[in-house]
Amino acid sequence: MLRPMPELPVALDAMGGDRMPDAAVDGAAQAHAEGVPVVLVGDPDVLAAAMNERGVDLPVVPAGDVIGMNEHASEIRRRNDASVVVAAREVREERASGFVSMGHSGATMAAALLVLGRLKGVERPAIVANVPTQKGDAALLDVGANADVRPRMLRQFAVMGAHYARIAFGTEDPSVGLLSIGEEPGKGNELVRAAHPLLAATPGIRFHGNVEGRDVLAGTTDVIVTDGFTGNVVLKLAEGEAKILFGWIREAVGSSLRARLGGLLLKPALRKVAERLDPSTYGAQPLLGVGAPAFIGHGSSDARAVRNALRFAHRTAQERLVPRIAEAMTDLAEVVAAEE
Amino acid sequence: MLRPMPELPVALDAMGGDRMPDAAVDGAAQAHAEGVPVVLVGDPDVLAAAMNERGVDLPVVPAGDVIGMNEHASEIRRRNDASVVVAAREVREERASGFVSMGHSGATMAAALLVLGRLKGVERPAIVANVPTQKGDAALLDVGANADVRPRMLRQFAVMGAHYARIAFGTEDPSVGLLSIGEEPGKGNELVRAAHPLLAATPGIRFHGNVEGRDVLAGTTDVIVTDGFTGNVVLKLAEGEAKILFGWIREAVGSSLRARLGGLLLKPALRKVAERLDPSTYGAQPLLGVGAPAFIGHGSSDARAVRNALRFAHRTAQERLVPRIAEAMTDLAEVVAAEE
Repeated sequence: MLRPMPELPVALDAMGGDRMPDAAVDGAAQAHAEGVPVVLVGDPDVLAAAMNERGVDLPVVPAGDVIGMNEHASEIRRRNDASVVVAAREVREERASGFVSMGHSGATMAAALLVLGRLKGVERPAIVANVPTQKGDAALLDVGANADVRPRMLRQFAVMGAHYARIAFGTEDPSVGLLSIGEEPGKGNELVRAAHPLLAATPGIRFHGNVEGRDVLAGTTDVIVTDGFTGNVVLKLAEGEAKILFGWIREAVGSSLRARLGGLLLKPALRKVAERLDPSTYGAQPLLGVGAPAFIGHGSSDARAVRNALRFAHRTAQERLVPRIAEAMTDLAEVVAAEE
Repeated sequence: MLRPMPELPVALDAMGGDRMPDAAVDGAAQAHAEGVPVVLVGDPDVLAAAMNERGVDLPVVPAGDVIGMNEHASEIRRRNDASVVVAAREVREERASGFVSMGHSGATMAAALLVLGRLKGVERPAIVANVPTQKGDAALLDVGANADVRPRMLRQFAVMGAHYARIAFGTEDPSVGLLSIGEEPGKGNELVRAAHPLLAATPGIRFHGNVEGRDVLAGTTDVIVTDGFTGNVVLKLAEGEAKILFGWIREAVGSSLRARLGGLLLKPALRKVAERLDPSTYGAQPLLGVGAPAFIGHGSSDARAVRNALRFAHRTAQERLVPRIAEAMTDLAEVVAAEE
């Protein structure tokens, strides 16, 4: 009988991020206990100390350097021993199935691009965010990797986003919307007006047409495609607004004795609403279009976010997200060739 | 002794909109009772009947036609007797100080442009939205008049927005932010990166620099400048998210007996939060950059929105918003000439 191949671990940059290495070790230990294979990447002494404190024993790949939050992303080109670069290299050399970093976002993206490379047919990798909607989660991309894009890149985002939604949300035939102003095909800016017919003529995706700002959280479509400028503004506005509204509700609760009592009774129910909006459910955002799973987390990530990101990274590797996207991009290249 | 000049009335398109003429007559009667001079524009028989029912008597300028919500905005070019065109003409011929329409937004914008013309130095008029923030209201522009703009147009929006904020919010020296991704001057898309130095070199405005999506509702600046595509997406997302979050809170309140009791106690305080977000406080959105005050309202506007819009339109005329913007644009033209 053949023994099953041992699963490759997810490589975690255990040094990059505000709460590292503590949150990394705690989160990795939790994920490991749930059956997610993990390898920590970072300073062996620092990690040994943090693991000792907790009575945890996880494999470590040594990395003597770390890209600071205020350094330039291009530093990764000459800092071969930086934790995020070493983590990406573990993936390229097939000792890890993917990598996660809660450090410098630009450096993580740059390391993924430089070390893992782009998939054939992907001109620009895109960062995807999972947004909570009235009908479950939706994938919004790009949320910041590319401030200026071409119409054909939005088409590539659409294909990648649809494959992502299948795996991330388990939606068999996800609908794809093109973020615009006005629902009719002719509405929008130059970019969107040029992208619309391309998305409409893309086999393998269920193109819904244009969606508007209000549709993002309404869950009108499973995937929302946009340029990285608009997507980043949308994501930060949506996160900011939720915080501000909850702040106003907290103020309202504190405004009178009656309201305080009401707030006390309502607290458990309101907590569920807040949980629906919690971005740490997925823990980190994948960069789609590179040669292996790469996940970019918030600098402020805690152990829960780390655990969730590792779990999510492992699942995308098991479900072959990157090979599936690679196949889809090859198919798209054939469609494009036939169009020309 | 000289008698003071009688104040010019605000012309209200009393036919355009879902709830017209009822909401128009009710709202105009309320505004009139508060001392806002108003003239109704529309079908004299229809308006006479609606006024009779209510025991109201307001001046009417007859208009035999109305642009339907599903018609094309360009219809205004050949429909001289359409209520929105007649209302704009009342302003051009100096029988009204400004006009308000709750009808077809595109037609209202087109009528304002065609009949009132652009101010010198304004390449593209912009629609401004008042957004509720943690620190009072802020002016967001453009929210949909121009899907594609040039960097110099964002500069014009900045100057118009600053003058608008002075009058609308009573802020003496409003700060102006440029919506981008990342706060540093070099961050953003091509448009924003090119606009940043122009805004920084504009006398008469207090330029804060770049702001991000999260800053919009945080009230980081009094004015937020962006292209009409991003602005429209932002506005519709912000409105949609508030509705969805309140919907989730309503669901939470209904989820148990305990929560229902809490909701009952908290209701008056929560209503205040909802009021903070109510877009009908201003009633309509001004189109800045045309030759006289022009206000575009929601098709679904009720009497309260009509009253507020008339009150707001009257105030902007009294405080000379348009002449002030005209002067500022002349000053800007000199700055631009000196730069070249």
